[in-house]
Amino acid sequence: MSTASKPDVADVHVYDTTLRDGAQQEGMNLSVADKLAIAPLLDELGVTFIEGGWPGAIPKDTEFFARAEKDLTLANAELAAFGSTRKAGGRAHTDTQVRALLDSAAPTITLVAKSDIRHVERALRTDGDENLAMIADTVAYLTDAGRRVIVDAEHFFDGYRFDPDYALRAVTTAFEAGADVVALCDTNGGMLPDWVFDIVSSVRERTDGRLGIHAHNDSGCAVANSMAAVIAGAHHVQGTVNGYGERTGNADLLAVVANLELKLEIPVLGGAGLAEVTRIAHAVSEITNIAPFARQPYIGASAFAHKAGLHASAIRVDPDLYQHIDPRKVGNDMRMLVSDMAGRASIELKGRELGFDLSGQSDLLGRVTERVKDAEANGYTFDAADASFELLLREEIAGTRPAYFRTESWRAIVEHTQQTGEVNAEATVKLHTGDVRVVSTGEGNGPVNALDAALRQSLVTAYPAIEDFELIDYKVRLLDSSHGTDAVTRVLLEMTDGQDSWSTVGVGPNILEASWEALVDSLVYGLVRHEVVPL
Amino acid sequence: MSTASKPDVADVHVYDTTLRDGAQQEGMNLSVADKLAIAPLLDELGVTFIEGGWPGAIPKDTEFFARAEKDLTLANAELAAFGSTRKAGGRAHTDTQVRALLDSAAPTITLVAKSDIRHVERALRTDGDENLAMIADTVAYLTDAGRRVIVDAEHFFDGYRFDPDYALRAVTTAFEAGADVVALCDTNGGMLPDWVFDIVSSVRERTDGRLGIHAHNDSGCAVANSMAAVIAGAHHVQGTVNGYGERTGNADLLAVVANLELKLEIPVLGGAGLAEVTRIAHAVSEITNIAPFARQPYIGASAFAHKAGLHASAIRVDPDLYQHIDPRKVGNDMRMLVSDMAGRASIELKGRELGFDLSGQSDLLGRVTERVKDAEANGYTFDAADASFELLLREEIAGTRPAYFRTESWRAIVEHTQQTGEVNAEATVKLHTGDVRVVSTGEGNGPVNALDAALRQSLVTAYPAIEDFELIDYKVRLLDSSHGTDAVTRVLLEMTDGQDSWSTVGVGPNILEASWEALVDSLVYGLVRHEVVPL
Repeated sequence: MSTASKPDVADVHVYDTTLRDGAQQEGMNLSVADKLAIAPLLDELGVTFIEGGWPGAIPKDTEFFARAEKDLTLANAELAAFGSTRKAGGRAHTDTQVRALLDSAAPTITLVAKSDIRHVERALRTDGDENLAMIADTVAYLTDAGRRVIVDAEHFFDGYRFDPDYALRAVTTAFEAGADVVALCDTNGGMLPDWVFDIVSSVRERTDGRLGIHAHNDSGCAVANSMAAVIAGAHHVQGTVNGYGERTGNADLLAVVANLELKLEIPVLGGAGLAEVTRIAHAVSEITNIAPFARQPYIGASAFAHKAGLHASAIRVDPDLYQHIDPRKVGNDMRMLVSDMAGRASIELKGRELGFDLSGQSDLLGRVTERVKDAEANGYTFDAADASFELLLREEIAGTRPAYFRTESWRAIVEHTQQTGEVNAEATVKLHTGDVRVVSTGEGNGPVNALDAALRQSLVTAYPAIEDFELIDYKVRLLDSSHGTDAVTRVLLEMTDGQDSWSTVGVGPNILEASWEALVDSLVYGLVRHEVVPL
Repeated sequence: MSTASKPDVADVHVYDTTLRDGAQQEGMNLSVADKLAIAPLLDELGVTFIEGGWPGAIPKDTEFFARAEKDLTLANAELAAFGSTRKAGGRAHTDTQVRALLDSAAPTITLVAKSDIRHVERALRTDGDENLAMIADTVAYLTDAGRRVIVDAEHFFDGYRFDPDYALRAVTTAFEAGADVVALCDTNGGMLPDWVFDIVSSVRERTDGRLGIHAHNDSGCAVANSMAAVIAGAHHVQGTVNGYGERTGNADLLAVVANLELKLEIPVLGGAGLAEVTRIAHAVSEITNIAPFARQPYIGASAFAHKAGLHASAIRVDPDLYQHIDPRKVGNDMRMLVSDMAGRASIELKGRELGFDLSGQSDLLGRVTERVKDAEANGYTFDAADASFELLLREEIAGTRPAYFRTESWRAIVEHTQQTGEVNAEATVKLHTGDVRVVSTGEGNGPVNALDAALRQSLVTAYPAIEDFELIDYKVRLLDSSHGTDAVTRVLLEMTDGQDSWSTVGVGPNILEASWEALVDSLVYGLVRHEVVPL
């Protein structure tokens, strides 16, 4: 296993199982509509196969394949239905589960098959020969029906370490019956890269069939295990977008693909490719509704974000010395973070990113750095709130904030009565734009929504630009959760004018106070951005 | 690189840099008190070194070392101060930054040194020989002063791939000057395990000194890269708790240590060890206030959580067939998740976990499974809300919920006036306990806090047990953030009675409505748990 052993591959399959194995993740619950929205994104990325689910076993997966047949057009990928070998003691052509796979009309069928003799005997409660017959019968029946068959050899690595001969017989039986690929599964996820390399190499010596790898991340090595398998001769990698999956997740297919293409120079994607991978990964997390992991390799929001004061000044000179790849290759960006650890060099760099030349303005830099430190000590964060930082910076440059309005008071009321069963939220805002006093009341689903409505309503006459502003994201974080609802609350808002979007932060002991601060910052920043002059 | 090459090591250093390199993570901001709270946890775990920060360069790190000298007693670990080699063209004993390292009184000093000639020339703006002199002078000066010196060879792997001779000279210069360890750093995090193995093996052939590995996770391989280095002959691994760190983070030291001890059978921890690692990892995330990553290997909340209906029935029989290790070895637990993907076998297993024998009760199982499906379709999740699930289960068993009280109405008001600058939150709850109508008003920092206060106050006379209940965690999630504050809100609450804790879930278009539902469930569950009889 060395750098010299780069595989000679014309083609490595990229097999995505986000919609099936990824959906096993704790807290994830994909609807048919979700799956129909994710599949085109995977196809756009250019994966080879999209595994859609288990028709017959899970009703919404049956529905997914029925709707996909009518509504889903794939340019790059082939749809795969997941299922199991026939029942022990039965026959493939009379097995209702196998029949449902054929009924799905998916061109590829992926069969999970046991290859660990202990699982055959203890979980399946049959014997080794019958399990091999189940594999042979089911693969032959489905290939005879014109389908491409992939076999997932479940618990293969654990099985191989316990009884290599039986595990190998499961693989060769599948190939002999016509399987196109046998994916070797580290189902329990406990393998290390050396072990995977050694075992895949051994299997490689015993068969010419196309081997695949299906890794889980329980030892923190799923990406490396997938790479090790390819280096040992596997030509098919399975994984999920963002590493979704049960327990610690499946191999993060995006990192595997990026490593294959950018590090080992093996092209594997057929569609838009890596340049779109960050956008696609985030679009998928919008649909799965799993908050993106900022530290995710390649595509995470932090993946190319630099905070270290030590490096900030050098990064100005030579960004390529501080990044393992050019972030544009994966559609991501380098970012400089504002933080009390950073110091003046970072603040200066951040200023430049926002269009302010602060070089040589030592006093100003010092004041801004001080204010950032104070604010962070009180729970603010500017890492994810560029607009709030820019307002702070502008205030220090101009000596004052743009005074679009003065708040007199605000109030929010939320009421519920058992009689009607309804909950009503209402907010009243009193403020002054120039010499005009405005009192507005807004309603909404919740108190923040009602405050937002009342605030916009009271400002839109004076500043019509506000009409186009819309709140698109709202995040709440309790900063000291050891005190339950007594904790300090931090709110991050994202607002858009239809063209661009910007983020602000608010902090307070009260969720509404924090929200109010972030709302006001968002509107003020939007007006500044649109070069609106205060009345 | 194979399983046969297990290193013959009596001792592998475990070097924790959570407090220094980990703190570079986006959004993390550790106070001196935070660092003083984390260090004893690391010591309890049994790491060999704790790197505390950069005294002299960062004021709060100077304070940390000053306070550590007085207040911090370590049973297992040695404290290390991080700093840099002397300035180019200067002398070690007159360098104020080097002086600050000595002043810290830390027994170990870790010096970052350049080993990539491009960084020497372009970032440091000096030549190769002067950089080597900086390493030699500073190491010699500090070892002469009686300190143990570790050298972090920054950008080593990138440097070695560009100019192996220069990178090696940096390493040998450090050893010749008296360095105890030279840690080879993948500073930009782009390495793959094969590359690390090959390069460490080459360095190993050229020196007898103790080599270390410092990996970042930019290619998703930090844990595997650390393992590869140890297998190639490194005897010192650096990393951070929970993989904290800049960009994609440092190597997750906990996964590395667990892999070394449980997979390669190399004992490395000196303290409480792996059996406490889950607790310690979560305690650290309480202090850093970075939400734990559920899928984190070994210690994540999901790391041993099973959802798959396919496996649920088999797991009942043979849990060891479905886990890469016994979760108790790392102080974690196996959990069964309730989900519409799971089906009856999982619900039955979950029931058993909660103390209900549902075997053979097919109708009941069917009803509970249906309700779980419906609730999840509406945004509920029971994965993290066992108490809400148990109430649902009890309701289906008993045919009714325990009627501790009937709500008539609730109302929350939050007000702010510019005049006083204050924000006040107040809630009024009207309800009936038995025949008694109770009206209570609570105040709080925020509306949820006020509602909680009013609800408790109106119930405590009838149910004194409530006196001991306390809300300890409160999480808010917007389920469809594409509509800003219009989104549906999910609230997860955790409550304790001082002995045990339990979690409930509430969902609604209104944050207060969702919070009210979860609050009511929490109190009702607590009363059920304490076997309080409804009035």
